[in-house]
Amino acid sequence: MPYVNIRVTNEGVTPEQKLELIKGSTELLVRVLNKDPATTFVIIDEVETDNWGVGYENITTRRQKEKQR
Amino acid sequence: MPYVNIRVTNEGVTPEQKLELIKGSTELLVRVLNKDPATTFVIIDEVETDNWGVGYENITTRRQKEKQR
Amino acid sequence: MPYVNIRVTNEGVTPEQKLELIKGSTELLVRVLNKDPATTFVIIDEVETDNWGVGYENITTRRQKEKQR
Amino acid sequence: MPYVNIRVTNEGVTPEQKLELIKGSTELLVRVLNKDPATTFVIIDEVETDNWGVGYENITTRRQKEKQR
Amino acid sequence: MPYVNIRVTNEGVTPEQKLELIKGSTELLVRVLNKDPATTFVIIDEVETDNWGVGYENITTRRQKEKQR
Amino acid sequence: MPYVNIRVTNEGVTPEQKLELIKGSTELLVRVLNKDPATTFVIIDEVETDNWGVGYENITTRRQKEKQR
Repeated sequence: MPYVNIRVTNEGVTPEQKLELIKGSTELLVRVLNKDPATTFVIIDEVETDNWGVGYENITTRRQKEKQR
Repeated sequence: MPYVNIRVTNEGVTPEQKLELIKGSTELLVRVLNKDPATTFVIIDEVETDNWGVGYENITTRRQKEKQR
Repeated sequence: MPYVNIRVTNEGVTPEQKLELIKGSTELLVRVLNKDPATTFVIIDEVETDNWGVGYENITTRRQKEKQR
Repeated sequence: MPYVNIRVTNEGVTPEQKLELIKGSTELLVRVLNKDPATTFVIIDEVETDNWGVGYENITTRRQKEKQR
Repeated sequence: MPYVNIRVTNEGVTPEQKLELIKGSTELLVRVLNKDPATTFVIIDEVETDNWGVGYENITTRRQKEKQR
Repeated sequence: MPYVNIRVTNEGVTPEQKLELIKGSTELLVRVLNKDPATTFVIIDEVETDNWGVGYENITTRRQKEKQR
């Protein structure tokens, strides 16, 4: 009966990629802990880059710096 | 001082239904644990059906299958 | 397919009270949004009073003040 | 390696204010627990006022009452 | 910079199994979204079976029913 | 009416340090967004080092490597 919450930045994740995350997480719980996939929830939260910070800066700024390199 | 987080799929929940969830959760905490409603928080998260998975599939696909029955 | 997370302070909640919270939350989701109880998750987190703050103080201190009144 | 999740109502928080929350939270973890800012995550969730409840009502209603005073 | 939170019931998950969940989740995010493993967090929460409900009952009761079959 | 959730590894955080986190987070929300401290919640979760992963390994292993340097 696991619950998996994946939070990533909102930078163009496609429905196909989301489905891969759902399938992969579910397989992992089935393989490692023998959980029932029918009651394994996976929820993906997409977070705006202005709303995610690390190292005192937001991801919007970090992405701009990466491009300038 | 409870915090209640309700996560549901984003499938047309109305403001009236949200208010019922808020009232009902608060009443539950007051009734069962004698909590103060003035400091009982209820937060509802609406999750896109592409972003919620169960049984190796997303809810978008599950809803399509349900309609085809 | 809702997910309900109830966070309360760890102050002697009994298994019977937890079950009431589980039943009540599930009934609420069934009644208001017609959700399937078989895939309605309720998770209760009990948080130490030192780890929960409001109004610049922790709940440990708040409870002591309430007793002194 | 801390993770900080700040949930506020969606009422016009500016990118500059979000950055102040990110910087302030990170500084707090560095100062109090000597954490490494490079692995300190801060995620801000903005919640619609219809989706946040306290005291049996949603914040939409509460804000209207505050204006009428 | 993903954040993965896995919530499972507290039923004897070993450190080795936890490590497999950490590795598997990280590999999934690297493979599907090309994320940097150095900033991919995985947090596992173990929840008491009295505190996890589904279908109006807690997991403690569900496990007892499963044994009686 | 903000909700702040701080997750750190369980490595001997003292009640005094927790209180500093509570006060500092609350002050931050008051200063940046003019929030009411009386309805600003701060919850600290302490996570076992076996249950927190980054870079394919858990924090237990990471701390051992740091000591060996």
